[in-house]
Amino acid sequence: MDQLKLKFVVEASEAESISQKLGLPSVRHLLPVLVEPAQSLARPPISNYHVGAVGLGSDGRLFLGVNLEFPGLPLNHSVHAEQFLLTNLAVHHCPGLLAFAVSAAPCGHCRQFLQELRNPCSLQIHITSQHHQNDVTFEPLREILPNPFGPFDLLDDETPLLLERHNNGLSLLDHDHDGGDLCNGFSDPQSKRVNGVLNSTLVKIAALEAANNSHAPYSGCPSGVAIMDCDGKIYKGSYAESAAYNPSLGPVQAALVAFVAGGGGGYERIVAAALVEKETANVRQEDTARLSLKLISPQCPLTVFHCCSFAEKNGCKKD
Amino acid sequence: MDQLKLKFVVEASEAESISQKLGLPSVRHLLPVLVEPAQSLARPPISNYHVGAVGLGSDGRLFLGVNLEFPGLPLNHSVHAEQFLLTNLAVHHCPGLLAFAVSAAPCGHCRQFLQELRNPCSLQIHITSQHHQNDVTFEPLREILPNPFGPFDLLDDETPLLLERHNNGLSLLDHDHDGGDLCNGFSDPQSKRVNGVLNSTLVKIAALEAANNSHAPYSGCPSGVAIMDCDGKIYKGSYAESAAYNPSLGPVQAALVAFVAGGGGGYERIVAAALVEKETANVRQEDTARLSLKLISPQCPLTVFHCCSFAEKNGCKKD
Ligand SMILES: [Zn+2]
Ligand SMILES: [Zn+2]
Repeated sequence: MDQLKLKFVVEASEAESISQKLGLPSVRHLLPVLVEPAQSLARPPISNYHVGAVGLGSDGRLFLGVNLEFPGLPLNHSVHAEQFLLTNLAVHHCPGLLAFAVSAAPCGHCRQFLQELRNPCSLQIHITSQHHQNDVTFEPLREILPNPFGPFDLLDDETPLLLERHNNGLSLLDHDHDGGDLCNGFSDPQSKRVNGVLNSTLVKIAALEAANNSHAPYSGCPSGVAIMDCDGKIYKGSYAESAAYNPSLGPVQAALVAFVAGGGGGYERIVAAALVEKETANVRQEDTARLSLKLISPQCPLTVFHCCSFAEKNGCKKD
Repeated sequence: MDQLKLKFVVEASEAESISQKLGLPSVRHLLPVLVEPAQSLARPPISNYHVGAVGLGSDGRLFLGVNLEFPGLPLNHSVHAEQFLLTNLAVHHCPGLLAFAVSAAPCGHCRQFLQELRNPCSLQIHITSQHHQNDVTFEPLREILPNPFGPFDLLDDETPLLLERHNNGLSLLDHDHDGGDLCNGFSDPQSKRVNGVLNSTLVKIAALEAANNSHAPYSGCPSGVAIMDCDGKIYKGSYAESAAYNPSLGPVQAALVAFVAGGGGGYERIVAAALVEKETANVRQEDTARLSLKLISPQCPLTVFHCCSFAEKNGCKKD
């Protein structure tokens, strides 16, 4: 498979055709085969430990996950391959993950994050380092995370879980709406094609969309980040919480997953970023987003916009 | 047990005597009994979900763990009860954890952090919410984290693990040594008894000690924080890594555990803080430490000192 130029999202028809070419009985058998090529796409400059994960979405598409590490930042800014995988599905609106193969045993942190899916018991996992090449047995998540703490401990059955459709009903606050400083912080020295004002608006709207898709049922503090590369392409990342709080994935990390998965290239190609969150949220991302972007993409300005939910706008104060 | 004024560290003899008074056959039976009083010591202003853990150290002492949450900061700044528990043992130089009882099923993040102990298979866990009051059965960590990723995947057998004696051989860099700005950032308006210069030196030395005890075998970037309260009492916290990177506990969090466990009281009582780390480390805590202290204890200045290891000082450049 080394010759295959692997993409982070493989269409269902393409996955089928690769499986057939390789003489595999099903797409599920293809997952372990693609793990090693996936590992080569990882970006772990601190550990040099390359992790790759390949998942089968409920719509038949394949999704890749790799680990990302950011020198100069605390390790909780890093993204594990399994978190990347789930975020990749979320970015591409795939509603479910059926199975995945991964190069090493998932850590507890990732097992917990996977617990944030609907019916996590049925998720099938194959660890390539623990099986012979021809043994493609999968085991359910429950086998490696028995007796879990999870969403069912805190939420009712109606609340959407990770990968399910979210609409947080957020709109931007009026005082952020005046056009005057909209293009502040947005400039693009690397591309003549980009119109500063238009693009700053597009990035802002994308960040609001990301916040509206954010999975934050535990804190009630959704947020989203959008970043733009020097070609004017925009990548959206939604903050995603875990019932356990600590494996939550920040909105900058989510946007970087979208950037890497979307072929964005080196982080120096990021030229603008916007964050949308509630101004007085109990869980606030602004300072951390600035801190991480300063190290990951020093030339990239971050503009912050505040939002409130529909309910808050209509009489209730923002919380 | 509600009448008991519970401390975060209970001496072995006291634990024995409480068990006997309650007619319990062993100190191990006392652990579940103390979980509810421990929960009342938690500080979770975001979730209001109080978690308590009570552990039996290998030296016979009992240690408490509670969850800490910090409004305004991302959730990965929070400390789970099990992480608090392990850090409490580390702060009090207890070399091993035999068993603990906890109010809710440990999350995957904590299961991974517990994996950082020597012989984690033998660690016995009791989840009070899942047992009748008279059923004090414990199950080993391996039962709830089978097939783990852990230190054995990355380290040799000689490397000290969490709770084992560390000496990172760090000393402060000379250019931080000149007395001129030593007392900068250290002042104590709330207590006349405190001598600024002396105390700033003590806090600095304590932070260096904490860095020397730091468990950072994966990144090679140890760090430590010391904080001083308005009575001049100093609390040390050592940065602790996990093989999985993401459940690592920052040095500010570790120092706050020492502060809470040591009866430090409200965070507004913290009047000075020092961080010691390598200047050009791949994993750097300074910005994050400033960010978190600014919200947790706004009036507290943080002074940063840089260190290098003995090997680096003798010819090799600091890494
Ligand atoms: Zn992981
Ligand atoms: Zn936990």
